[in-house]
Amino acid sequence: MYRMVSIAEAQETVLKAISPLPSVSLGLSDAVGYILGEDVIAREPLPPFPASIKDGYAVVSADGPGDYDVAFEALAGTAAGHLKAGTVAYITTGAPLPEGADAVVQIENTEKLPPGSDGQQRVRIVKPAKGPGDDVRATGSDIASGEVVLAKGSRIGAAEIGLLATVGAATVQVWRKARVAVLSTGDELVEPDCAQLGPGQIRDANRFMLAAAARSAGCEAVDLGIARDDPAQVEAKFQEAIAQGVDVLLTSGGVSVGDRDFIKPILERQGTVHFGKVCMKPGKPLTFATLNGDAGSSGRGLVVFGLPGNPVSSIVTFNLVVLPALRAMAGWAEPRLRRVHARMQMAIKLDPERPETGESAGELAAVSTGGQISSRLLSMRSANALLELPAAQGLLPAGSLVSALLIDDLGAMTVPEEIPLVVPTL
Amino acid sequence: MYRMVSIAEAQETVLKAISPLPSVSLGLSDAVGYILGEDVIAREPLPPFPASIKDGYAVVSADGPGDYDVAFEALAGTAAGHLKAGTVAYITTGAPLPEGADAVVQIENTEKLPPGSDGQQRVRIVKPAKGPGDDVRATGSDIASGEVVLAKGSRIGAAEIGLLATVGAATVQVWRKARVAVLSTGDELVEPDCAQLGPGQIRDANRFMLAAAARSAGCEAVDLGIARDDPAQVEAKFQEAIAQGVDVLLTSGGVSVGDRDFIKPILERQGTVHFGKVCMKPGKPLTFATLNGDAGSSGRGLVVFGLPGNPVSSIVTFNLVVLPALRAMAGWAEPRLRRVHARMQMAIKLDPERPETGESAGELAAVSTGGQISSRLLSMRSANALLELPAAQGLLPAGSLVSALLIDDLGAMTVPEEIPLVVPTL
Repeated sequence: MYRMVSIAEAQETVLKAISPLPSVSLGLSDAVGYILGEDVIAREPLPPFPASIKDGYAVVSADGPGDYDVAFEALAGTAAGHLKAGTVAYITTGAPLPEGADAVVQIENTEKLPPGSDGQQRVRIVKPAKGPGDDVRATGSDIASGEVVLAKGSRIGAAEIGLLATVGAATVQVWRKARVAVLSTGDELVEPDCAQLGPGQIRDANRFMLAAAARSAGCEAVDLGIARDDPAQVEAKFQEAIAQGVDVLLTSGGVSVGDRDFIKPILERQGTVHFGKVCMKPGKPLTFATLNGDAGSSGRGLVVFGLPGNPVSSIVTFNLVVLPALRAMAGWAEPRLRRVHARMQMAIKLDPERPETGESAGELAAVSTGGQISSRLLSMRSANALLELPAAQGLLPAGSLVSALLIDDLGAMTVPEEIPLVVPTL
Repeated sequence: MYRMVSIAEAQETVLKAISPLPSVSLGLSDAVGYILGEDVIAREPLPPFPASIKDGYAVVSADGPGDYDVAFEALAGTAAGHLKAGTVAYITTGAPLPEGADAVVQIENTEKLPPGSDGQQRVRIVKPAKGPGDDVRATGSDIASGEVVLAKGSRIGAAEIGLLATVGAATVQVWRKARVAVLSTGDELVEPDCAQLGPGQIRDANRFMLAAAARSAGCEAVDLGIARDDPAQVEAKFQEAIAQGVDVLLTSGGVSVGDRDFIKPILERQGTVHFGKVCMKPGKPLTFATLNGDAGSSGRGLVVFGLPGNPVSSIVTFNLVVLPALRAMAGWAEPRLRRVHARMQMAIKLDPERPETGESAGELAAVSTGGQISSRLLSMRSANALLELPAAQGLLPAGSLVSALLIDDLGAMTVPEEIPLVVPTL
């Protein structure tokens, strides 16, 4: 009934159906991880005045070495004084260069002399300035007035926060992030704190895992609990998601071919199912729909991803299809997973029917996390990449170059000994 | 007065002086990003019973193809029934295999037959099971009972949350993360929302940048504001940090050689200064001290990093020395920045005196972010790695292989076109 689409087509379909959420204004301390919704321009040059790079003495460079009266102190945060030739001024790092001065001699290149009989401070310039501008940051040398310091579309990290503070952008326009509701379905599911499983029961892992993944993407997660395998109960949960004004609903389970799979029929009644099957292992039953009407806090409708019930399938399809959608909503220009290349450290058996996305704990050297079964969440433990393996017969030999999609921060691995790092040579 | 230590020695000194913070108990939804402080063991096998992998029919595999009565329905979340040879049971994905059955035939390999005259449901097995176990997950095949699913020291991501939920670990012991106070010093500094700079003034960037960096590491940041260049005011801020019970204090500015640099003398009076100068550009005046007594919420004393005032120097030394300390406090076994190798895409001028850490927007192909001046925060914009360049005369030619330390998530670049990706070939 549903055409099987490739993951690339599925991503394309999703990214076409959604658009960035409205922008919001955030204070500096809350803006990390957001995408900037406006160009940020410097209104003044930085430094706003010629500034000393060192602690030392402001000089007229042509005066050269010798003994000088220290006319005054030029301190950070004060107005620049005026220096006469033949004198110097003590100056601290970042202080405005006095008018008349054209260079700074750092303190290490001077010797303090005994004060004169009138109490006048004196200093010997041992190693003079090389010329005008020595150890001085010219006005605007770091940032020019009118310069775009951060362009619309930039991702805001710590250094970007520093730039925003520098140019006085105490609040910024950023794209809002999605509010994501998470719902598990299945008569077999019980809560994680269930101490004693009943007959046929397992604990619900997907809801907590998907909420954590949504939060890791900076989104707020709303827990809708577990719906039993009962169309009325599932439909009521959909209404609850709409009432809560979320932007995205993630369901897991209930999208396979059996007659106890309710998600697709409900989505068909309430909106548009854009695809209901993808050519990928794991993750085949992945379903994507949009529900319009007055749903969604922005009046833009509700985006629904029906994820498979098997935990590996659900987190893999989250990464491949949902995460790019959440990123696109948050204003990312290129929301897809970053693709790198890696060298297989072991042989891997291929699937003749569907291309496979395996998990790898490797960075540039790919090491499998072990048995790849969609119910076996241990195969995702410590994984930082998904390998893109072709649909083919036989083995992919060790040493093959494979394409990998990054799903975690490579800089944040806690046990690097397990991850053979490879020096790339071109 | 202070011996210049290498960055490696500085890191070593810091990591020796600190230890992991006490562990705390967190609920599943709050544990992402923490390091697990205990082994987590599965109390039951997963699946807890032989479970169907497909929607279809539970069969006795020896029965082979043919037409069968559907004796009952085996649904997810119910107790397993008992199947007699010569009959089949309808079964849904994840449901317990009935006793007596030994395999599942997926629905696609069957044909529904018209009910018998007695209303008995019947089905034709077109393509029989290959043998016992076909499309059945054996008890414990995903997780064995007693298996350590997550070892002490594991970093908890979304997949790990799923594993914890699966085995019923609704709360877990994790290492606490540091509370970090941030203080800027300098008479020249004003708040970012200052619309009109006075003479000699610049806006404070470091405090917001360092707080953002600490928060990005999962820490709580406490804002201590700006201290003027006045020892009494700086000392009062230190007392405030101690009173607030923070674990770490980050100061910026006031650690250079001039006589208006107050931080080191205060640290010497109140505790132990372990180093006060590092052989690195930028970041030379980096200072590290420990203050004991009753400071710190854990009674373990206060750890103080005196970072340089230049914004690039402060964020670079944060990444190289403070971040590993925060990670070690949070229980990371290997807290240092991850080192990779990259190919220079352009020539870079070397510093003959101090080894240099430059910023790169590249992943495996290193591209400079432009002019590298410690006051020029634009040189940190979009940087995802710090290059480790040797102290040497002359140019490092394009094409050189350099060592790089990851400071951002390579998977989270928003504008990949700017980052030439290189396929590593061994």
